[in-house]
Amino acid sequence: MSRQEVDLLVHSAAQLVTCAGPGPRRGAAMRDVAAIADGAVAIRDGRIVACGTTDDLDAAYAPREELDAGGCTVCPGFVDCHTHVVHAGDRVDEFERRLAGESYAQIAASGGGILSTVRATRAATVPTLMDAAQPRLAQMLALGTTTAEVKTGYGLDTESELKLLRTIDRLDRHQPVELVPTFLAAHAVPPEYRGRAGDYAALVIGEMLPAVAEWHRGSPFARSGRALFMDVYCEPHAFDLAQTRLLLEAARAAGLPLKAHVDQFNALGGLELALGLGAVSVDHLDVATAAGIAALAKSDAIGVMIPAASFHLGTPYADARALIDGGGALALCTDFNPGSAPCPSLPMVMAIACRHQRLLPAEAVNAVTVNAAHALGLGDRVGSLEPGKQADLLVLDMPDHRYLCYEFGGYPVINVVKRGQVVR
Amino acid sequence: MSRQEVDLLVHSAAQLVTCAGPGPRRGAAMRDVAAIADGAVAIRDGRIVACGTTDDLDAAYAPREELDAGGCTVCPGFVDCHTHVVHAGDRVDEFERRLAGESYAQIAASGGGILSTVRATRAATVPTLMDAAQPRLAQMLALGTTTAEVKTGYGLDTESELKLLRTIDRLDRHQPVELVPTFLAAHAVPPEYRGRAGDYAALVIGEMLPAVAEWHRGSPFARSGRALFMDVYCEPHAFDLAQTRLLLEAARAAGLPLKAHVDQFNALGGLELALGLGAVSVDHLDVATAAGIAALAKSDAIGVMIPAASFHLGTPYADARALIDGGGALALCTDFNPGSAPCPSLPMVMAIACRHQRLLPAEAVNAVTVNAAHALGLGDRVGSLEPGKQADLLVLDMPDHRYLCYEFGGYPVINVVKRGQVVR
Repeated sequence: MSRQEVDLLVHSAAQLVTCAGPGPRRGAAMRDVAAIADGAVAIRDGRIVACGTTDDLDAAYAPREELDAGGCTVCPGFVDCHTHVVHAGDRVDEFERRLAGESYAQIAASGGGILSTVRATRAATVPTLMDAAQPRLAQMLALGTTTAEVKTGYGLDTESELKLLRTIDRLDRHQPVELVPTFLAAHAVPPEYRGRAGDYAALVIGEMLPAVAEWHRGSPFARSGRALFMDVYCEPHAFDLAQTRLLLEAARAAGLPLKAHVDQFNALGGLELALGLGAVSVDHLDVATAAGIAALAKSDAIGVMIPAASFHLGTPYADARALIDGGGALALCTDFNPGSAPCPSLPMVMAIACRHQRLLPAEAVNAVTVNAAHALGLGDRVGSLEPGKQADLLVLDMPDHRYLCYEFGGYPVINVVKRGQVVR
Repeated sequence: MSRQEVDLLVHSAAQLVTCAGPGPRRGAAMRDVAAIADGAVAIRDGRIVACGTTDDLDAAYAPREELDAGGCTVCPGFVDCHTHVVHAGDRVDEFERRLAGESYAQIAASGGGILSTVRATRAATVPTLMDAAQPRLAQMLALGTTTAEVKTGYGLDTESELKLLRTIDRLDRHQPVELVPTFLAAHAVPPEYRGRAGDYAALVIGEMLPAVAEWHRGSPFARSGRALFMDVYCEPHAFDLAQTRLLLEAARAAGLPLKAHVDQFNALGGLELALGLGAVSVDHLDVATAAGIAALAKSDAIGVMIPAASFHLGTPYADARALIDGGGALALCTDFNPGSAPCPSLPMVMAIACRHQRLLPAEAVNAVTVNAAHALGLGDRVGSLEPGKQADLLVLDMPDHRYLCYEFGGYPVINVVKRGQVVR
């Protein structure tokens, strides 16, 4: 019997981590990465044709190219489901001043904080923003990220928010990391609306939301089945619970799927609100109540936790064990941003989560692959190695997936394959 | 006037961090990295001829090769002054079991812990140990380490300890990271001496110490002015204060300079003992008393702290601020080892130290360069960029040194120059 032709056969993996299975991984199922020993993946036209043992796939497929993963682990490309990677400038001065003892309030009073990034981003052109973001995306790719969400939220006026969306679109076409846009005009109250968060929220609802929804309908994201998410930062210094409700309800009415930054520093009820409105993910959760985490665990939403920000800021870590042990679905992200998480590395995030949130390595792996894909509405396309899915995978310099969490600070990724192409 | 010929000119650095100055940096002097804007370094025969502005060095030197560091930071190659990088096997199983809730005692009772690494290392040949260590050293080099101390201490018998020293010697000659050996037979009590630490200490003193001192006298390390250090692990489960005293005094009598693992989990008086015996460095210090840190700050010893182990184990961080604010000299290291710090990255160590020990970025930079060099007795040779010193330097992808600490988990090093050669 003749072998079926395929474009690429990745073979001889000491461990092939597929993360295969229906829906997000919940509760005890997060401990299973659906591994195959001496594994192989057959790829044609950028998609996975089959996963199995090297012997079985060698017998069934005739590849035009081969990638020998002998001694290595092969796993799905990582999905970074929450980033702010498109922004101008950085906040290294603020970091140093904080280490020297200045308070966040002192820094904000002297023009620091998120609004300093807003000023720099408003002043930047699309090419300038691309030049700033491309090295960050290149680092993320080198560390295994093949799909990333990118939020707006440093523009805070209609034209600047659209400029950020256009930048995300151009970056999506000019480098290998596949991007998913999120509209986060409700990230902060811009200086011209200081003390008038309600008026700014009305602008977001009345002017910006229709404009970005229209932009999305005509964009390559819509054509390729990638949503534009709506996100709101629910905190006393950003948007209160009533404003968050108006913003999310308006977005839902406009057909945008929902995310929300909730319970990072204050549990205002944002978690419960977002769950009630059917949010796809609820993000941060550092100070969520036990009841809130229990409600999340029973819901369909993905809980997205951000250990890199807790590490950077020295703030409490979200209770990942309560979410998983309650039967919930956890995803992890970098939150890559200049203020609270200047970190491109999902392996570093996994290493922090294991140590500070008591995750097992397998739980951390599912949290940055299949569950992160579901947090972006892309669970049918990326995040696991299964026939029909995009051929996004990593060759890792380790005999099994646990070393991703055990070792830290190193260079674990040997090769990155995106849609069947070896891009690194 | 004709320009002087040199082999290499590294030029146009946005910031040239020299760390220049006499002796280790102490107290408030640790905040100064002796930076030069638009800096350059002229190199001949593997040594630094001059540091200055690009304009000045362009006028004075005619280089055969140039390295353009435009927009980048140039700094001394990092010195990792405390590692256990030569060992067989790893302890990923133990890591996972600990995350799942098993205690250190349960793991040790079932054959885990340091003695599992001793079993694997005793069984390994020199080539096997080299094969295991070389990828670790390659990762360290890629992350900026150009000089590293390597301890024995997984052999625990004369022949196995000599095997480790021979491995360190061969590794020193077969890859670019320059190595400094430390004799640490007093790392643990081997299984055949269980319950008889005193008898084992007598073996170390009577048989092993003379043998390794003789080996060192005939080795390339002695010929090139690199010492063999003696080190002792002073903890109740290793060597008590009286045994530590006997071991260190014997080593001092044999002419070996001293280091000691002290006050990691228990403050037994090891810190004060080591200072009294004139140790070059005292390492760990996580639970050192305020009086102990104050005594260290007034001594000539370098305090070596190990935030990566605290991060990995979830144990207290040493009080770096008290040491520096008391006028002391701090160095940082990875402690790269399979049990408590599976981490090759000094940038990661610096990032952890800033966040968990309140170091300023400049303090962290001095701690992994000039002060770490002094912790190895190599302060006249490496750790700073000054005329006459080895041309060991890094080109970093950042406008100034603070980004080494602000960003974390990424790939900051563009080029590595060792003894004037671009090795990465």
